[in-house]
Amino acid sequence: MNAITTAGEKKLVLVTGRANLELAEQVAESLGTDLLPTDAYNFANGEIYVRFSESVRGCDVFVMQSHCAPINEWLMEQLIMVDALKRASAKRITVIAPFFPYARQDKKHRGREPISARLVADLYRTAGADRIITVDLHTAQIQGFFDGPVDHLVALPILADYVKRNYPGKLAVVSPDAGRIKVAENWSETLGGVPLAFIHKTRDIDRPNQTKANRVVGEVEGRTCVLVDDMIDTGGTIVQAAEACMDAGATGVVIVATHAVFSGPAVERLKNSVASEVIVTNTLPLPEDKKFDKLTILSIAPLLARAVHEVFEDGSVTSLFNL
Amino acid sequence: MNAITTAGEKKLVLVTGRANLELAEQVAESLGTDLLPTDAYNFANGEIYVRFSESVRGCDVFVMQSHCAPINEWLMEQLIMVDALKRASAKRITVIAPFFPYARQDKKHRGREPISARLVADLYRTAGADRIITVDLHTAQIQGFFDGPVDHLVALPILADYVKRNYPGKLAVVSPDAGRIKVAENWSETLGGVPLAFIHKTRDIDRPNQTKANRVVGEVEGRTCVLVDDMIDTGGTIVQAAEACMDAGATGVVIVATHAVFSGPAVERLKNSVASEVIVTNTLPLPEDKKFDKLTILSIAPLLARAVHEVFEDGSVTSLFNL
Amino acid sequence: MNAITTAGEKKLVLVTGRANLELAEQVAESLGTDLLPTDAYNFANGEIYVRFSESVRGCDVFVMQSHCAPINEWLMEQLIMVDALKRASAKRITVIAPFFPYARQDKKHRGREPISARLVADLYRTAGADRIITVDLHTAQIQGFFDGPVDHLVALPILADYVKRNYPGKLAVVSPDAGRIKVAENWSETLGGVPLAFIHKTRDIDRPNQTKANRVVGEVEGRTCVLVDDMIDTGGTIVQAAEACMDAGATGVVIVATHAVFSGPAVERLKNSVASEVIVTNTLPLPEDKKFDKLTILSIAPLLARAVHEVFEDGSVTSLFNL
Amino acid sequence: MNAITTAGEKKLVLVTGRANLELAEQVAESLGTDLLPTDAYNFANGEIYVRFSESVRGCDVFVMQSHCAPINEWLMEQLIMVDALKRASAKRITVIAPFFPYARQDKKHRGREPISARLVADLYRTAGADRIITVDLHTAQIQGFFDGPVDHLVALPILADYVKRNYPGKLAVVSPDAGRIKVAENWSETLGGVPLAFIHKTRDIDRPNQTKANRVVGEVEGRTCVLVDDMIDTGGTIVQAAEACMDAGATGVVIVATHAVFSGPAVERLKNSVASEVIVTNTLPLPEDKKFDKLTILSIAPLLARAVHEVFEDGSVTSLFNL
Amino acid sequence: MNAITTAGEKKLVLVTGRANLELAEQVAESLGTDLLPTDAYNFANGEIYVRFSESVRGCDVFVMQSHCAPINEWLMEQLIMVDALKRASAKRITVIAPFFPYARQDKKHRGREPISARLVADLYRTAGADRIITVDLHTAQIQGFFDGPVDHLVALPILADYVKRNYPGKLAVVSPDAGRIKVAENWSETLGGVPLAFIHKTRDIDRPNQTKANRVVGEVEGRTCVLVDDMIDTGGTIVQAAEACMDAGATGVVIVATHAVFSGPAVERLKNSVASEVIVTNTLPLPEDKKFDKLTILSIAPLLARAVHEVFEDGSVTSLFNL
Amino acid sequence: MNAITTAGEKKLVLVTGRANLELAEQVAESLGTDLLPTDAYNFANGEIYVRFSESVRGCDVFVMQSHCAPINEWLMEQLIMVDALKRASAKRITVIAPFFPYARQDKKHRGREPISARLVADLYRTAGADRIITVDLHTAQIQGFFDGPVDHLVALPILADYVKRNYPGKLAVVSPDAGRIKVAENWSETLGGVPLAFIHKTRDIDRPNQTKANRVVGEVEGRTCVLVDDMIDTGGTIVQAAEACMDAGATGVVIVATHAVFSGPAVERLKNSVASEVIVTNTLPLPEDKKFDKLTILSIAPLLARAVHEVFEDGSVTSLFNL
Repeated sequence: MNAITTAGEKKLVLVTGRANLELAEQVAESLGTDLLPTDAYNFANGEIYVRFSESVRGCDVFVMQSHCAPINEWLMEQLIMVDALKRASAKRITVIAPFFPYARQDKKHRGREPISARLVADLYRTAGADRIITVDLHTAQIQGFFDGPVDHLVALPILADYVKRNYPGKLAVVSPDAGRIKVAENWSETLGGVPLAFIHKTRDIDRPNQTKANRVVGEVEGRTCVLVDDMIDTGGTIVQAAEACMDAGATGVVIVATHAVFSGPAVERLKNSVASEVIVTNTLPLPEDKKFDKLTILSIAPLLARAVHEVFEDGSVTSLFNL
Repeated sequence: MNAITTAGEKKLVLVTGRANLELAEQVAESLGTDLLPTDAYNFANGEIYVRFSESVRGCDVFVMQSHCAPINEWLMEQLIMVDALKRASAKRITVIAPFFPYARQDKKHRGREPISARLVADLYRTAGADRIITVDLHTAQIQGFFDGPVDHLVALPILADYVKRNYPGKLAVVSPDAGRIKVAENWSETLGGVPLAFIHKTRDIDRPNQTKANRVVGEVEGRTCVLVDDMIDTGGTIVQAAEACMDAGATGVVIVATHAVFSGPAVERLKNSVASEVIVTNTLPLPEDKKFDKLTILSIAPLLARAVHEVFEDGSVTSLFNL
Repeated sequence: MNAITTAGEKKLVLVTGRANLELAEQVAESLGTDLLPTDAYNFANGEIYVRFSESVRGCDVFVMQSHCAPINEWLMEQLIMVDALKRASAKRITVIAPFFPYARQDKKHRGREPISARLVADLYRTAGADRIITVDLHTAQIQGFFDGPVDHLVALPILADYVKRNYPGKLAVVSPDAGRIKVAENWSETLGGVPLAFIHKTRDIDRPNQTKANRVVGEVEGRTCVLVDDMIDTGGTIVQAAEACMDAGATGVVIVATHAVFSGPAVERLKNSVASEVIVTNTLPLPEDKKFDKLTILSIAPLLARAVHEVFEDGSVTSLFNL
Repeated sequence: MNAITTAGEKKLVLVTGRANLELAEQVAESLGTDLLPTDAYNFANGEIYVRFSESVRGCDVFVMQSHCAPINEWLMEQLIMVDALKRASAKRITVIAPFFPYARQDKKHRGREPISARLVADLYRTAGADRIITVDLHTAQIQGFFDGPVDHLVALPILADYVKRNYPGKLAVVSPDAGRIKVAENWSETLGGVPLAFIHKTRDIDRPNQTKANRVVGEVEGRTCVLVDDMIDTGGTIVQAAEACMDAGATGVVIVATHAVFSGPAVERLKNSVASEVIVTNTLPLPEDKKFDKLTILSIAPLLARAVHEVFEDGSVTSLFNL
Repeated sequence: MNAITTAGEKKLVLVTGRANLELAEQVAESLGTDLLPTDAYNFANGEIYVRFSESVRGCDVFVMQSHCAPINEWLMEQLIMVDALKRASAKRITVIAPFFPYARQDKKHRGREPISARLVADLYRTAGADRIITVDLHTAQIQGFFDGPVDHLVALPILADYVKRNYPGKLAVVSPDAGRIKVAENWSETLGGVPLAFIHKTRDIDRPNQTKANRVVGEVEGRTCVLVDDMIDTGGTIVQAAEACMDAGATGVVIVATHAVFSGPAVERLKNSVASEVIVTNTLPLPEDKKFDKLTILSIAPLLARAVHEVFEDGSVTSLFNL
Repeated sequence: MNAITTAGEKKLVLVTGRANLELAEQVAESLGTDLLPTDAYNFANGEIYVRFSESVRGCDVFVMQSHCAPINEWLMEQLIMVDALKRASAKRITVIAPFFPYARQDKKHRGREPISARLVADLYRTAGADRIITVDLHTAQIQGFFDGPVDHLVALPILADYVKRNYPGKLAVVSPDAGRIKVAENWSETLGGVPLAFIHKTRDIDRPNQTKANRVVGEVEGRTCVLVDDMIDTGGTIVQAAEACMDAGATGVVIVATHAVFSGPAVERLKNSVASEVIVTNTLPLPEDKKFDKLTILSIAPLLARAVHEVFEDGSVTSLFNL
């Protein structure tokens, strides 16, 4: 008898960093399990300590983290968690990064810049991640930065469903930036082929020393503008875009974005903007003082939970693209 | 005496695959050198044989190839050349791929697709390439697919300079596709802030079963439209875009693109199009029967030669972005 | 409840490139399954597009391809398929390359040559292949080029069985090339210890400027010569060897080879040769116009199917060496 | 029907190199299995040949070896075994090295030295090892030399249990070397907080050209000293330490170590030492002529067997730290 | 003429992150050069942006950073700088981390912990670092965590020289922790063989529920104790050790450490401690409010500058160990 | 002034393991330099210690070792030397292994065998070797096992030159093994087209239980047979081959081989054989008691020295193939 044989089985385990405990708990609940207890804190000099309280040997582990500020802190915490899982003999490690860190630094805009999004993908790999689940990447090409499977989920169905139900009137989809009009084109199609426009920042030819002006290219007059983007950071661009829409004759503006980064003056700007509603998801945690009356937060947890379930069960995540 | 010491020196060597000998010779001439003689042919069953006729030991070698059809053939040839250089002790190997192969497959458009552009970057790395020089990538993110330096050159200065000299009248810059309007925005700025437009493909709401219609979003009336893109493949999209411009009241259309792929019906379509001139570079070779009266080919060789020179001499390639 | 536990299971999936659909279907049939539907075509400029129509997540996938001309095309297609499988979360990817591409470039014959067979093995690895199944490598050392398991199947039992049944008379085994006499030695043993000979190409010492002459070294007189090799490419060497055998007094010649590359003049040469029969397998597809009366094609599909089955079931492939 | 589905199962296989067959058999017996028959011998020129007599395809294989002299021989044998397992499609390969080779060369003591312990970890990785099980590393940092899980078992519970049962009197724990006092501190705690001391080697200030003197730092008078170390190599240091303890007023000395390297004069020294008992484990094999009256050998096999069992069953090895 | 040949030359460039500009400027000044101007700032959401203002192509670049709080921030900044340098074609990239981040997490103290120090070494490698220069690692084994050359500098000569000049009386060297007594042993030797002691934390056997007591093991009576450690973090251990020395009859205590982490209550504790002087280096920056009367800061810049110079000139760094 | 610029220079350093000091000294002398002093010895338990006595920072280092018995010892020593060189910042490391270890295990002869020659190539790579210089590989495919440049030198010109000068009569070249006849074919050509033969081992058909018989295939009658092989291990095969030649009517036999492994009974067999002379090189050291009257040893040192010189000076090694 030269071998011992037993039936195989597989175990799903969900752990989370400290950035967005609430979202992780929602995902766990959707899956019908609990988060694996994890010990995580900072030493006096800021170094992070992590330890899992129960065995993860042989498990299919999903490591959640939201990458809000302090973003480098949360990224390092997740890398350290992955390292600990690898050394603790987890069978497969999937990083869940609903908002991919440094996604905007996805190319060299000028010489001697980093490509930090590729660096982040490589750091995950080095730490021991086998795969990544993420939502609405700033550019889809980032999938190709990781040397392994990336399940790229889209929040569009969740967001568009809400817009369709709440804004039955005449709509136009507007991209606040020429470079991101493809996203708006997807929205236009999802909303049934409504007109598409974008904001073009130009210098006034007569006053070349002036700052740039925002001009709406496309037809928005008499329509409610759905201003769409993947994220809202300081909110400057999108709030100006909203004004440009109104100036161009729009009857109203709603702002929609997957990732509510809401840095610095964002909340003030959005509160005081001409937009009547701001619709986001909870890929990033929002403390109470960043919430305001016209803000609507839709939960991304059911989408993440379904993706985790399909990955674990070897089902198809592709179907999630067409919820 | 436990060591032998000599002064260091460095040697630049330029080799080429068989796809575009003419361009390689132009680059060599610009550099003031000759191509290193290379033996390359196909065996009866299609396998490629390559051998360099002179020593490349310790050299800083630049391996040129143009990736026209049969594109897989030329890609494999370049990979095999890189392998031979690595095993022949070249000190540093730089792949020159003016038209990066599979650049359009830079993300998963749907589930279970490859990301072939990343694969190609990895194949170059595996074969032994240390760095890449390329021109006008389909998306700049592809730089991040390669784990090493990528010198991403832009043909815009060469092309825009020609347009400025030859089209002094009122211009508008038009992108044939919403997803590529960023390129057009650069053109708009380079041409001094001329209006920007793009073609929006929509379903006619009243006749949903019809094919899509091309609509110009933005202002082109009374202007000569400069239709810009990174490449022209079968020419269908851009020729239809030219018509849409004329329909929208443009006074003329010139088509400008870096890469003249010119597959299938492209030449016929361009010849018969409403455009008055088609301006491209020679990143890809064009046989005589693909040339036609209103086609203008500008040489990319001086730009490549300057990049090679700067890379070899450890100068700055960044400055090439602002020729 | 900190984990979700389910029973493990495993799924075998078979996909194929476009080079030899017939062989793939035979293997699928032997296994009692169907090929997974795959979308594969070339874009206008020659770039290949591949997409799998059903989920392969968690599957044990076998990717077949035959490497006939255009060989670089089919190699790239297989690499792209492997990349797509990797990114689609296949659990294990096995490349089936019955005729290993570039197997003859397995060393540097002269300085500054590539070792393309190693390059090919590395390209498979880079794309994401975990293991390789192949048949009758040109040299067995190629197994060592791949950093992972290689199941090296041998067609000798299939071919020798046929020869034994059809050629009961006095035989001699002849190698057409001194460097490949080891294969002939295996044949000699399998056929029960029949005499062994090889063809030695020599310059005639008296007429040094003449082309080489083929001389049979060993005893073939009065015997039917079984001329054996791993592949027939243009057929020149083996047809001349057949003649040399007859000149040396053989009573007949049959040619046997695993891989029917049949490039250029091969079919004409074989048809018109002194050999009475040419026996090959279908590791490479043969179009109707390359078949001829005295050609016998034995199917390799049952061997491949058994290997796939053993690999999937964690059985022993070693036993296949001694069918 | 595009896939074949079967239930997964997993198989544990145990193989061993030739250095310590007895220990491997004890572990196999503890696990209730047999060692997989393995063919291993040296060719005339010293090269090692290894072949497994049965299929290991898909198995979870544990490769035991003890690293006694000739240590490079046994290390190479284990590397070659791992290579053979990898190429034979083992699913997971765990190296069991109860005494980690070259553990003492774990840093550069001076410039231009190797870090051989890291090299060994890398060699295991390169050969194909997925994980390592080891016992009482010279420094725990060596865990970090391997890029994968390391299960670091401790013999302290086994050894301390024996000491507690046999030495009920007043004890002191003594470290023979300042740099290894941490181990002694663990012992002190395990034995219930007994006093701790170490041997400080000093030059006599008055006679600086003299060899160093051993001085006991800490309180040992009237106590039985438990001299603890991870290994006994030539025994010089520990035997001198034992004398220093007696000189400092100890009532007796027992020597305890996990690894009985016992090189050169070790056995003579220990036999003739002032120590009343020498307690070790069988991580390294001891031939009959290296055994002596006051030597006690405790078996490490049950600990290894439990670790293998937990690793195979995805249980927790952490619990083994607190047997 | 198939090659262009020029004389080789090499260029040293020094850049720094934002954590300790002063130290970097001191090093640059010692080398007789200036820091390369670098643009570095945080985006609103905390992501770091870095760009070098001048070409680094072909340069031998040294990237300084001090890893004080917020330590993850400074680590990520340095990784991003390395990525940018790699993509900007720097010839060789040396990370200078005078205080190696996460050095204390250099092993798994318990199961399911990370080995963060190895992770950090791997992250540097992945980003593109070729080599590391560091000072007084927490354990020398960390050298082995990096797959490349590590120049491990020691501050002992600088610190010991100061102590020798200022404390001519009778000394004893004391280690505050049993595990770090090796460092103290080096000090003892450097100071001419003065007595050595360490602090042993024990539970009082009579009152087992009490907290641990600090006991001096070794002879300190009538001597000035030099309490030595690699770093002072919160200062708790070392300040208690100082008290234990005084309790044991020391005539005075000076505290010496290379790295002044000085977290949380450290400054208060040190100020109020029984130690008469606290001697550190500036491997970590100390803001004015962390400086106090009895604190002496010695500059590490000359040592770093000499190491950089030797590395650049291919001299010997080993000699720096014996300044 | 943001950079320090100096002229580049390069330094050649030669070091050696302990297996064949004499050969290394010959190579050093040919190059006009001395071996770098190296400290190498075994610890009591067999572990090897290595340290270089002078700085190798930035040097182009060549590490010689001969792989005679105890072969695993010498291989590990060389790996450890490479590791030390890597960590000591050597700029480039070239392994010189005149007799490549484990070259005969270059494929799986049967299932579940290792491919030790590939493993050895990978171990060199992992330790830090950039390139390999070797002589007369058992099979040339081994070049492809290493992921980097391999300079494969051939001793044929040295050996053939000697044979031509000393054996002016009628010659035949004989291969002792069918599988190695290619080498003999090269000899036949170098000697001006002399007849070629090989030894075929057959079972006597009438007495199948008998051991195999050696039969000469080819024409040797009345000629002096030059029996050629890459190595002589135990000498059994080649001595029997010599007898077979004489039996077949040869007038004399000389045995020629590059590598004098001379294991076990080799010397006795060769001394007592029918061969009149045995000609080898000193790729492996031969102690005095393995030398005998009819043994001729030609030095390989000039060939190695020329290769080192060309590699260092970036000349062409290819030309060494045609001395």
